[in-house]
Amino acid sequence: MALVNDHFLKLPNNYLFADIAKKVNAFKVMHPKADVISLGIGDVTQPLCPAVVEAMHKAADEMGTFEGFRGYGPEQGYDFLREAILKNDFLPRGIHLDLDEIFINDGAKSDTGNIQELIRWDNSIAVTDPIYPVYIDSNAMIGRAGLKGEDGRWSNVIYMPCNAKNGFVPEIPDRRVDVIYLCYPNNPTGTVISKEELRKWVNYALHNDTIIFYDAAYQAYIQDDTIPHSIYEIRGARKCAIEFHSFSKTAGFTGVRCGYTIVPKDLTAATLTGERVPLNPLWYRRQCTKFNGTSYISQRAAEAIYTPEGKEQVKATIDYYMQNSHKMLSTLRSLGFECYGGENAPYIWMRIPDGFDSWHFFENLLYGANVVCTPGVGFGPSGEGYVRFTAFGNHEKTEEALDRIAKWSRKV
Amino acid sequence: MALVNDHFLKLPNNYLFADIAKKVNAFKVMHPKADVISLGIGDVTQPLCPAVVEAMHKAADEMGTFEGFRGYGPEQGYDFLREAILKNDFLPRGIHLDLDEIFINDGAKSDTGNIQELIRWDNSIAVTDPIYPVYIDSNAMIGRAGLKGEDGRWSNVIYMPCNAKNGFVPEIPDRRVDVIYLCYPNNPTGTVISKEELRKWVNYALHNDTIIFYDAAYQAYIQDDTIPHSIYEIRGARKCAIEFHSFSKTAGFTGVRCGYTIVPKDLTAATLTGERVPLNPLWYRRQCTKFNGTSYISQRAAEAIYTPEGKEQVKATIDYYMQNSHKMLSTLRSLGFECYGGENAPYIWMRIPDGFDSWHFFENLLYGANVVCTPGVGFGPSGEGYVRFTAFGNHEKTEEALDRIAKWSRKV
Repeated sequence: MALVNDHFLKLPNNYLFADIAKKVNAFKVMHPKADVISLGIGDVTQPLCPAVVEAMHKAADEMGTFEGFRGYGPEQGYDFLREAILKNDFLPRGIHLDLDEIFINDGAKSDTGNIQELIRWDNSIAVTDPIYPVYIDSNAMIGRAGLKGEDGRWSNVIYMPCNAKNGFVPEIPDRRVDVIYLCYPNNPTGTVISKEELRKWVNYALHNDTIIFYDAAYQAYIQDDTIPHSIYEIRGARKCAIEFHSFSKTAGFTGVRCGYTIVPKDLTAATLTGERVPLNPLWYRRQCTKFNGTSYISQRAAEAIYTPEGKEQVKATIDYYMQNSHKMLSTLRSLGFECYGGENAPYIWMRIPDGFDSWHFFENLLYGANVVCTPGVGFGPSGEGYVRFTAFGNHEKTEEALDRIAKWSRKV
Repeated sequence: MALVNDHFLKLPNNYLFADIAKKVNAFKVMHPKADVISLGIGDVTQPLCPAVVEAMHKAADEMGTFEGFRGYGPEQGYDFLREAILKNDFLPRGIHLDLDEIFINDGAKSDTGNIQELIRWDNSIAVTDPIYPVYIDSNAMIGRAGLKGEDGRWSNVIYMPCNAKNGFVPEIPDRRVDVIYLCYPNNPTGTVISKEELRKWVNYALHNDTIIFYDAAYQAYIQDDTIPHSIYEIRGARKCAIEFHSFSKTAGFTGVRCGYTIVPKDLTAATLTGERVPLNPLWYRRQCTKFNGTSYISQRAAEAIYTPEGKEQVKATIDYYMQNSHKMLSTLRSLGFECYGGENAPYIWMRIPDGFDSWHFFENLLYGANVVCTPGVGFGPSGEGYVRFTAFGNHEKTEEALDRIAKWSRKV
C-alpha cells in the first residue's frame, strides 16, 4: 500500500481564514442587504503603484521580442533585483551581504514554510504565541511539531507567550532550544522589538547554538527610527539568523508574488558528529531542486519599487495605511478598548472586554456592527482574549467601520 | 546544537547543468572567438506569443486600478484559468474533472518536487532511468531515497531502465512498489508511451495499490493522435495517478512560471491501520500552508494561450521547434547516428559511438564542433552511452550546429 504522510492527519481540518470566511458567508446569506466591512484578513486593497505597473509593461514587451525574451532565470533570482535589495534595504543600515546570500522567492509564505527542510526532523522549535500559523503547520507536516493536544498546543513546540505584561516580546527561554521563530514587526500583534531586546535574542542564539528564523515581512511599516528593520543590525546575527522579507505588504504584491530570504554564509548547523555545515549552499541546493525562480515580470516589478519614483509611491501607500492605523488606534482607545501595536505595523491587537472569548467577540461584532475582525485565538492559545484589526482598508470603509464599532460598543 | 538535515549532505554537490556550464565556460575562456551553439539545456528561445503579451499588459493595467486590483488569489488558482484548462485540455479528450481537482502552480518543477511530502518517508519509489533529476533529489532530501552508491544509484530507489531494447518504456516491476514516477513524452529520451502500454501501468497501479506521479509537461508536442496526452485517458487512472502539466514548454513560460497539477478526488493512500485517505484535500492543505498562489499576471498570461489567437500562436511556436527536431533527426540519422525520440517531443536521444562515454563525447563535440549537448549519464546510470539534444534553438543556429556536427563526425 502506498502510505500517506500521516503527520498531515494531525493538522486541524480547519484553517483560520477559511473558518472566518464561512461564518461571514453564513451571515451574508441571512442578511443579504448588510454591507459587511472586513478589517480581518491581512490583504492589501490599494492598487500597484505606477512605477511597478510601468515596469511590468516593459518586462512583458521585452518577453515578446527575440532580443528581450528570458527563459529560465537563476533559481536564486536576477542580479538586478538582488543588487537593488542590497543597495536599498541593507547597505544604508550598515549591513553588508554577498549577493548570493540573497534568495528571491515568490513570497515569504513559501520560504517561511519551506525553510524547516534544512534542519533535522528532531530539532526542538520555539515560537512566539500568538503566531502566524505557517511556522507551526509547516513543522507539523513533517512530524517535528509532535501531536496537537486538546488545549491547541503541539507537544514538541515550545510556546513563548507574548502578552501585555511582557510588552509582546517573550521571555528568553530558560532552557536551550534549537530553532526559534521570531516575527517583528509582529503579525498578529502589530508590536515591535527594540534593538536592545533583539540583541538579547541574538546573544542567546549565539550562546546556545540556536538558529533564529526572523520574519521581517512588515519592516517597511516601521515609523520609529530606533526600531531595527533587520536582525542583521545586531552584531553576530549573521552567525545565527535567517531573515525573510516580502514585497506583499511593502508594495501591495500579495497578487504579484515576490519576496526574498537572506541566508548568511556564516550561518551553520551541526551534524550528529559535530561538524559544522553552512546552510547557504544547502538552501541554494533546495531551491535549485524544488523551485525554478520567480516570474521575470514580478522581479522587474519588484526592482521598480527601488527607483526614486517607486520609493515615493510605495511610501505614499504605506502612509495611507498607517493613517488608518492611527485613526483606528485613537478611536478604539477613546471607546475604552485596550489596544497594542498599530504604531509601527499595520495591525492592531485589541484586548476584548471581559465576558467574551475571541470567537464570541468576533460573532458579536459581525452581527452587531457588520465588521469583521480576526479572533486572536486563531493565532495560538495566548491569542485568546484578543482580536486583530488590520489597517489595509480604504479610508472611507475604515472610518465607517469605526463609526459602527463606536455605536455598537455603546450598546454592549 | 541546531542539527542540519543530514539527508542534504548525501546529495552530490554538483548539479548536471551547472557542471555543463562550467565546462562550457572553461572552453570559452580558452577559445574566446569560438561561437558555441547550445543544444544542451532544455530552455526555450522563442518570444512569448502576442496573445500572452497582450494579456499581461491588460492584467498589469488592472492591478494599477482600484477596481481591478487583486491581492491574494486563491492558493489553488483562479477559476478563470482552471475553467480554461478543463475546457481545453481535458473535456475534449473525454476527461471530466472537478475544478478543485486542478491546482495552478508556479511551474511543474515545484510540484513534482513537493508532491512527495504527501506520502510517508518509508514508501518505496521507482523511477525510470534515465530520469529528470528532481524526482530523485526531492526524495533524497527527506531521506526516502536512502544512500547514493558509487555506481550513482540510490539504495532505496528502484531503477527501471529505459533503453532501445524496451523502446524506452520500462518493464512493469516484478514486485510491488508504492510510488512510481513516469514522464511521457519523456525527458530526456523524447520517447512516448502508447495508450496500450500506459494501460498496463494503470492496471499495475490499481492492482498493487501504487500511486503514479505522471509528468505530462511535454504533452503539447505530441504529433501522433493515438498517443495519450493525459494518463486520465486511461480508465481507472483517477484512482491511482497525480498528473503534472506545465506551460513552460507549451507556451515558452520558463520565465513566466505557471503550470498545473491534477489531484483527483478518487485517489487515496492508506494509513498504517489501513484507512484510506484522499490526497486531494491534503494537497490543498499543503498548498495553503506553504504556497500563496501563482502571480495573477502569470495566470492571466496562461489563460490567453487558450483563446483562439493564443492557440494558433502557441501551435506555431511548437511547430517551429518540431521543425528543428525533424531536421535534427534526419541529419543525425543520415550521419549514421542511432537516434530516438524527437517525433512527439522536443528532445532527441542519441546513441553515441562505441569508444566514447557520454561526458567524453560531450567534450569532444564541444571542442570539435563547438556544439553543446547533454551527457546522458547526467540523467541516470542507464543514460550512459547516450546524449540528449534539444530542439529549442533558432532554426539558423540549429542548422549551423548540424552542419558542424556533420563536418566533425566525418573526422572522428
